[in-house]
Amino acid sequence: MTLIRQLSAPDEFVGFYLLKELEVKQTNSTPAKDYFDIVLCDASGQLPAKYWDVTVTDKETFLPMGLVKVQGIVQTYRDRLQVKIMRIRKAVEADGVSLTDFIRSAPIRPIDLVHTIKQTAGSIDDPDIRTIVAYCIGKVEEKLMHYPAAKTHHHAYFAGLAYHIVRMLELGEFVCRQRPFLQADFIKAGIILHDIAKPEEMIAQLGIVTDYSVPGKLIGHISMASSWITEAAIRSGIGLESDTVLGLQHLVLSHHNLGEWGSPVQPQTAEAVALHHIDALDAKLQMVEDALDTTPETEPWTQTIRGLENKAIYRLNPGNGQ
Amino acid sequence: MTLIRQLSAPDEFVGFYLLKELEVKQTNSTPAKDYFDIVLCDASGQLPAKYWDVTVTDKETFLPMGLVKVQGIVQTYRDRLQVKIMRIRKAVEADGVSLTDFIRSAPIRPIDLVHTIKQTAGSIDDPDIRTIVAYCIGKVEEKLMHYPAAKTHHHAYFAGLAYHIVRMLELGEFVCRQRPFLQADFIKAGIILHDIAKPEEMIAQLGIVTDYSVPGKLIGHISMASSWITEAAIRSGIGLESDTVLGLQHLVLSHHNLGEWGSPVQPQTAEAVALHHIDALDAKLQMVEDALDTTPETEPWTQTIRGLENKAIYRLNPGNGQ
Amino acid sequence: MTLIRQLSAPDEFVGFYLLKELEVKQTNSTPAKDYFDIVLCDASGQLPAKYWDVTVTDKETFLPMGLVKVQGIVQTYRDRLQVKIMRIRKAVEADGVSLTDFIRSAPIRPIDLVHTIKQTAGSIDDPDIRTIVAYCIGKVEEKLMHYPAAKTHHHAYFAGLAYHIVRMLELGEFVCRQRPFLQADFIKAGIILHDIAKPEEMIAQLGIVTDYSVPGKLIGHISMASSWITEAAIRSGIGLESDTVLGLQHLVLSHHNLGEWGSPVQPQTAEAVALHHIDALDAKLQMVEDALDTTPETEPWTQTIRGLENKAIYRLNPGNGQ
Amino acid sequence: MTLIRQLSAPDEFVGFYLLKELEVKQTNSTPAKDYFDIVLCDASGQLPAKYWDVTVTDKETFLPMGLVKVQGIVQTYRDRLQVKIMRIRKAVEADGVSLTDFIRSAPIRPIDLVHTIKQTAGSIDDPDIRTIVAYCIGKVEEKLMHYPAAKTHHHAYFAGLAYHIVRMLELGEFVCRQRPFLQADFIKAGIILHDIAKPEEMIAQLGIVTDYSVPGKLIGHISMASSWITEAAIRSGIGLESDTVLGLQHLVLSHHNLGEWGSPVQPQTAEAVALHHIDALDAKLQMVEDALDTTPETEPWTQTIRGLENKAIYRLNPGNGQ
Amino acid sequence: MTLIRQLSAPDEFVGFYLLKELEVKQTNSTPAKDYFDIVLCDASGQLPAKYWDVTVTDKETFLPMGLVKVQGIVQTYRDRLQVKIMRIRKAVEADGVSLTDFIRSAPIRPIDLVHTIKQTAGSIDDPDIRTIVAYCIGKVEEKLMHYPAAKTHHHAYFAGLAYHIVRMLELGEFVCRQRPFLQADFIKAGIILHDIAKPEEMIAQLGIVTDYSVPGKLIGHISMASSWITEAAIRSGIGLESDTVLGLQHLVLSHHNLGEWGSPVQPQTAEAVALHHIDALDAKLQMVEDALDTTPETEPWTQTIRGLENKAIYRLNPGNGQ
Amino acid sequence: MTLIRQLSAPDEFVGFYLLKELEVKQTNSTPAKDYFDIVLCDASGQLPAKYWDVTVTDKETFLPMGLVKVQGIVQTYRDRLQVKIMRIRKAVEADGVSLTDFIRSAPIRPIDLVHTIKQTAGSIDDPDIRTIVAYCIGKVEEKLMHYPAAKTHHHAYFAGLAYHIVRMLELGEFVCRQRPFLQADFIKAGIILHDIAKPEEMIAQLGIVTDYSVPGKLIGHISMASSWITEAAIRSGIGLESDTVLGLQHLVLSHHNLGEWGSPVQPQTAEAVALHHIDALDAKLQMVEDALDTTPETEPWTQTIRGLENKAIYRLNPGNGQ
Repeated sequence: MTLIRQLSAPDEFVGFYLLKELEVKQTNSTPAKDYFDIVLCDASGQLPAKYWDVTVTDKETFLPMGLVKVQGIVQTYRDRLQVKIMRIRKAVEADGVSLTDFIRSAPIRPIDLVHTIKQTAGSIDDPDIRTIVAYCIGKVEEKLMHYPAAKTHHHAYFAGLAYHIVRMLELGEFVCRQRPFLQADFIKAGIILHDIAKPEEMIAQLGIVTDYSVPGKLIGHISMASSWITEAAIRSGIGLESDTVLGLQHLVLSHHNLGEWGSPVQPQTAEAVALHHIDALDAKLQMVEDALDTTPETEPWTQTIRGLENKAIYRLNPGNGQ
Repeated sequence: MTLIRQLSAPDEFVGFYLLKELEVKQTNSTPAKDYFDIVLCDASGQLPAKYWDVTVTDKETFLPMGLVKVQGIVQTYRDRLQVKIMRIRKAVEADGVSLTDFIRSAPIRPIDLVHTIKQTAGSIDDPDIRTIVAYCIGKVEEKLMHYPAAKTHHHAYFAGLAYHIVRMLELGEFVCRQRPFLQADFIKAGIILHDIAKPEEMIAQLGIVTDYSVPGKLIGHISMASSWITEAAIRSGIGLESDTVLGLQHLVLSHHNLGEWGSPVQPQTAEAVALHHIDALDAKLQMVEDALDTTPETEPWTQTIRGLENKAIYRLNPGNGQ
Repeated sequence: MTLIRQLSAPDEFVGFYLLKELEVKQTNSTPAKDYFDIVLCDASGQLPAKYWDVTVTDKETFLPMGLVKVQGIVQTYRDRLQVKIMRIRKAVEADGVSLTDFIRSAPIRPIDLVHTIKQTAGSIDDPDIRTIVAYCIGKVEEKLMHYPAAKTHHHAYFAGLAYHIVRMLELGEFVCRQRPFLQADFIKAGIILHDIAKPEEMIAQLGIVTDYSVPGKLIGHISMASSWITEAAIRSGIGLESDTVLGLQHLVLSHHNLGEWGSPVQPQTAEAVALHHIDALDAKLQMVEDALDTTPETEPWTQTIRGLENKAIYRLNPGNGQ
Repeated sequence: MTLIRQLSAPDEFVGFYLLKELEVKQTNSTPAKDYFDIVLCDASGQLPAKYWDVTVTDKETFLPMGLVKVQGIVQTYRDRLQVKIMRIRKAVEADGVSLTDFIRSAPIRPIDLVHTIKQTAGSIDDPDIRTIVAYCIGKVEEKLMHYPAAKTHHHAYFAGLAYHIVRMLELGEFVCRQRPFLQADFIKAGIILHDIAKPEEMIAQLGIVTDYSVPGKLIGHISMASSWITEAAIRSGIGLESDTVLGLQHLVLSHHNLGEWGSPVQPQTAEAVALHHIDALDAKLQMVEDALDTTPETEPWTQTIRGLENKAIYRLNPGNGQ
Repeated sequence: MTLIRQLSAPDEFVGFYLLKELEVKQTNSTPAKDYFDIVLCDASGQLPAKYWDVTVTDKETFLPMGLVKVQGIVQTYRDRLQVKIMRIRKAVEADGVSLTDFIRSAPIRPIDLVHTIKQTAGSIDDPDIRTIVAYCIGKVEEKLMHYPAAKTHHHAYFAGLAYHIVRMLELGEFVCRQRPFLQADFIKAGIILHDIAKPEEMIAQLGIVTDYSVPGKLIGHISMASSWITEAAIRSGIGLESDTVLGLQHLVLSHHNLGEWGSPVQPQTAEAVALHHIDALDAKLQMVEDALDTTPETEPWTQTIRGLENKAIYRLNPGNGQ
Repeated sequence: MTLIRQLSAPDEFVGFYLLKELEVKQTNSTPAKDYFDIVLCDASGQLPAKYWDVTVTDKETFLPMGLVKVQGIVQTYRDRLQVKIMRIRKAVEADGVSLTDFIRSAPIRPIDLVHTIKQTAGSIDDPDIRTIVAYCIGKVEEKLMHYPAAKTHHHAYFAGLAYHIVRMLELGEFVCRQRPFLQADFIKAGIILHDIAKPEEMIAQLGIVTDYSVPGKLIGHISMASSWITEAAIRSGIGLESDTVLGLQHLVLSHHNLGEWGSPVQPQTAEAVALHHIDALDAKLQMVEDALDTTPETEPWTQTIRGLENKAIYRLNPGNGQ
């Protein structure tokens, strides 16, 4: 089976792909005829496709986010590759293919990511912090296995959120070693909790965010996580006025650093300052890495990246211009 | 007993006043001698005062925010009035004077303000909203009797917060009549809850804020009130995901309108839009009214007002310039 | 006759509608044929329509903003309703239909709105203020009967400006009762004058703004209204340096509050502060009300609203999520 | 008579100076004694001075902005020069000294500046523009002889406003020659009118602004000048809707370029774009020139200049660092 | 031969034009056929054109930025003129036409512009400044003959950069006469050097910028020019710490005035303040002049201009509205 | 010898201290007498001190930044400690005390810091990068032994710059291990070069910055370092257009991330993005650490920190509020 990234015109091919998008359109002819305007994808990339002479049954059979077996031809249309689909059918259980094989995902298995997060949570010394962190993980544990960290900004793929947390935990551990005055318990907790409500803020399927939820819009993940901490403390009998609860809520509430970036308070503990900058460092570098990964190696510049002041990234080559 | 506002040089007077500020200073003479640099106030205003030849006992006897009986002379020093204190003693119970008579306060009795607030809370139709509002009032009911609405910005006096809420409730009632599509329960609740955590955000005595509390700085009154709603819902068995809870939290979280003004989310319900503008209208007009009240009527301009783009307010007199 | 809002596919219908927009387009066939790409509307809403096989006479007969009688079929095209027009003719006098029945307009009759405005203007005690207000109303009285308050922002429909003024006058009356230190004459005058030059700033037909006028662009409605006050004072022999004239000009000039919102000075009288916030409260709530009114009741969210930080409004339903 | 700039410690001197500032202060001794804390100035600069053992008569005799004859000694106090006044008396007519000899003023005689302005105004071809410009000059002609262009920003001295206008007229003439598509009449008129209302916006004496006027604060010089154009047109029977009036008002209203700098509209004619940049070029360079002129030549850096992003100006010396 | 600007429907014409843009598109018919979507231009303007029934050879023959001979018919398509090309062939040497006759360019011959720049550079008195300026001109002298000053902002045409420099030199000379404290050598040098690296920042052909270069993006023309001064000083043995080198680098680095406009330092010498404002005055007026030149004289408004706060320019006509 | 931090009233003590600040003042008595207003410091902190009855010789003997031996008494003056100096003399060689023992400095020996920097520079694989880095270090190697990283912002003490670089190198090494797509040579070089010109931008003594240099103000350390790279490349024959030189200059120029923070270009290589965030993380955490170190452990809040949005830092204590 050929990967999307490996197809070139005028290949003929047969394979399984994900119908990432599907729209029914009409030709300009009289009478107009229906056709499918499709995006096919696998984990290596995606391509537009057309399927002509669509039947009424087809329109009921093929839906976005379903797996299909396709026989097609690769053509060039206005300088871009496009697939003309000759035959198409839905994948069935006997085909032995799985949705998750066809989507972009974190480079580490979700189960390992969640394991690392839970293990780190368990290593927190302070019993109250440990209890609260465990409670919050419990609310989204299943979604942590597949949710992205954002709609498009960064780590926007299967298990991207868990991957972001794990990389930040590595950084956090290093920074705590370098600066022992930081309280490691709060750093670990802050990293795990800072985006913990994102799976309830967004509605995602297979790592792709389709919308924000009503609580996501009206409350936002920052205030939601803060409320979860209140909830955890009440359920566990931890004092709501304790420095433990205040410190955890402060970490979550301040981690976007500025009001215009969504934080109602600015970092005012050492750990909150550290959390914001660890988050920024990891998110920005991941944007760069993702952009480079999805740009052909022959291209010196990536697409522009919204989270990086709308700049593109250039591949430095010390051999150039010598 | 003469009111502060009525004193003029070279009056000699005797009366009870509040020692609003007191600092021990030293003269430049050799050897240096201690004296008191004092601010005397009553509900009508305040004046600087000096008390010379302070004894060790005096320094232990007289403390800020205490009531005193003063015999003094009003003098002019660099174009401003100043009191030279001849005799001073602490007020005693037999004097029959009460602290609250000497401070600036809302023009309506605190007990009536709180009564109005509780009555309005009780008139909310929706039982869940009514329960949550009552719970939150319960947390600060005693402080509502005397807390100001802000440190200096607006309603910065005894029971200023309760007064602000009551005036907003009047406005809210009018707006709901004018625009029946607004849900009155949410408007009432939003007005009562929007600043309900301010008494825990600030540390105040007699209507004067001396500092912000630790939770006030790390969490802020907006997120604190949002957590109280969570707490109220848990304690009362109201669903945390219900539109009732979301709607109330959204009102509180969004009432500052913009991120740079402290709101993590922007108004996205009709009632939240109304709440922000009712709050703004009442707070800004009160700033104007307070500035005009504390400016002598002969002065055409007030002091500049920080909350009004640092502008002073001019008293229009349609008779001028004709 | 069926209202636009009530049509659904595959209805066949006959009725009178307004040709809100009409563009002549060409088919892709060879030779290309002309057709009309149309927007039909009535007071309840609007629908796209196509009229095929257009003749040369048709192109001269049918023009935007004209009333037509249409026989058509409602179809679904790419998930949206669209009318296929079978027959069309211009409405004639004998049809007894009137343009104003087919457009969106304020919920109160224009004649009543203008009557209220003039009555309030007449109730101003100060003769100079009353004279100036009457003079300015006189300049646009006819246009007040139908002009919108803005191009798209708020009250963007027939007599929207007069409606905005009337609702603000209600609010202003309430606020003056609540805060007697405000001078009611200036509040009434400020409300009536603040947008009084908008009909000269914009070019509108049937409540729909098509462009800004040259003075509208070069001077703007704020400075235009300020000049009208100068003009009124000169014509009526009122002193240009009087507090009356200064106070009225200040109300108009400052009512957008900030330089970046178009006000060359910031509010510096009590009445100017009140005017800005009364204006904001009414305009923002009307945006919300208009958005909710034009959103099907089954939709929980409206479209995004530019004047509200580009946020959509959510319909809170206390029954949800219980 | 020695110029202020030429005095050094421990000179003894006698001469006439201007009492620019005078404050009565008290010594710390017991009993306190009154003394004068004074600023003496002449056209070359200013120096602080002290006059001890002040009598009651002295306090009535000596007032700020009066000319005095002084016998004094120059001393060094904390690294700065200060005058100890031994004898002082008011200047009398017989002394033959004139206030204007003692203040900073434009380098060209006011009468010549105003002459140039009026001559240029008279050279305007278009009769309506000429009429309006003459009318506006007429309103402030006497004040043009001595008003500064700003409180502290630039040209803050005797006849500074007229000087600013004249230099801009020179620049404007050059730019019109360089770019003939510009209409010279509008350029001349725009330069003369752009700040023409400043003498009514500010209250100044001898080129020193002490405050802003009530119309200055409530309306601002930009809108005031715009109203004067309206007034001129009405009085002269020129159409208020003519391009002439619109064009002149637009020049005045837009010359600060941005809303946050006080312009309610942005430049939208060629001449308005030119006016803004001619104004900026002249004002900024004058700030630089004034700062260099009042900095001793041995100092490489001037004081910081608020209108130049709070930067100081460095004197480049191509001989340095070779 | 007819100029583009003079063509109107339904002219038939033959002439030479520049193929400014050319895209191969497909018709909607089955089977789809290729056609050319073309922009034809000459120095007077441009028009869209279609060429149907394109052959494989055509697709290899016709490329953007080539000269062609065209026989065509002018048609009206959706209210705009469009050319239907009947016959087309590439221009050959025997046709005697030259690319540069068909593009927009500065109104003065490039050779004369560069001559003026070099002559002014030669007139600099200070030998070090003269040397450095000559060195930098040397790096781009050939490109100065044709490079534009910007991609779209201003002077975006053949030799636009040299033209901008020459006009600024005229202004600079005038300002130095008006304010003799300015050091003319630095003014001349600053004007010549301020944009001197633009030809290396951008990639342009025939005065049209197609992209930014890698150094242009990573370093920017401001820092590039600063490095060239370093380079010139090293190669010529001029002290890198001298006021000469600092002063020149400061002129270049600060000429955008603010950090958000790309200047790492703000103007801190008299000449740097002058340079920024001379640059602004010339660039903004040229934007206005270019917009007016390319707008038909019958149109009262130009297109909006990005560099002028996105405002359009209005042609004032003192005869209007009388 | 007692450390400053350990002194309390009414201690009598003798010891060596640094005269950090010294001002000659006059008493208010008649005649006025000179006294010294002094700040004494050692590496543990600082205290104000007074020395009365100063002689003419004293004024010539004692200068700021000199070491002195002091016999004094600790007193309380207005709630703060203050030293009354009984005897004072300059330290002499025989005292065996060294200035550097009395100032705040990095927690690692300067010689070790510079060694680490040079060793890392030597470990760069690419010979051109290695050469350029070595050249730039060579320009400031001596100053690297003692310069602070900033005037007040962060690392504002002896060898603070070298310490900042070393900590960043540790972080950089970790990030390169975590994300192997980063080019370690550029990361090392960027960290060493990003602030390398600060010692020429500022004038410092003993780790205390007293002013900015002329090149520091006119060019700034960012552009200075960029020029040094040009210089290094020219002197070493490395191509100025090579990716090596562009990449290094880009790292330096972009490391402040935004124009308003002083960077003329924004990060556009992976390494530049990393550099900015490594710099931010280290600088911000050092601000926090320094603030906590200089705040008594009993104080829950530090002073406000300008570089952290003017917020103070709170010491979380998980035991509080339980």
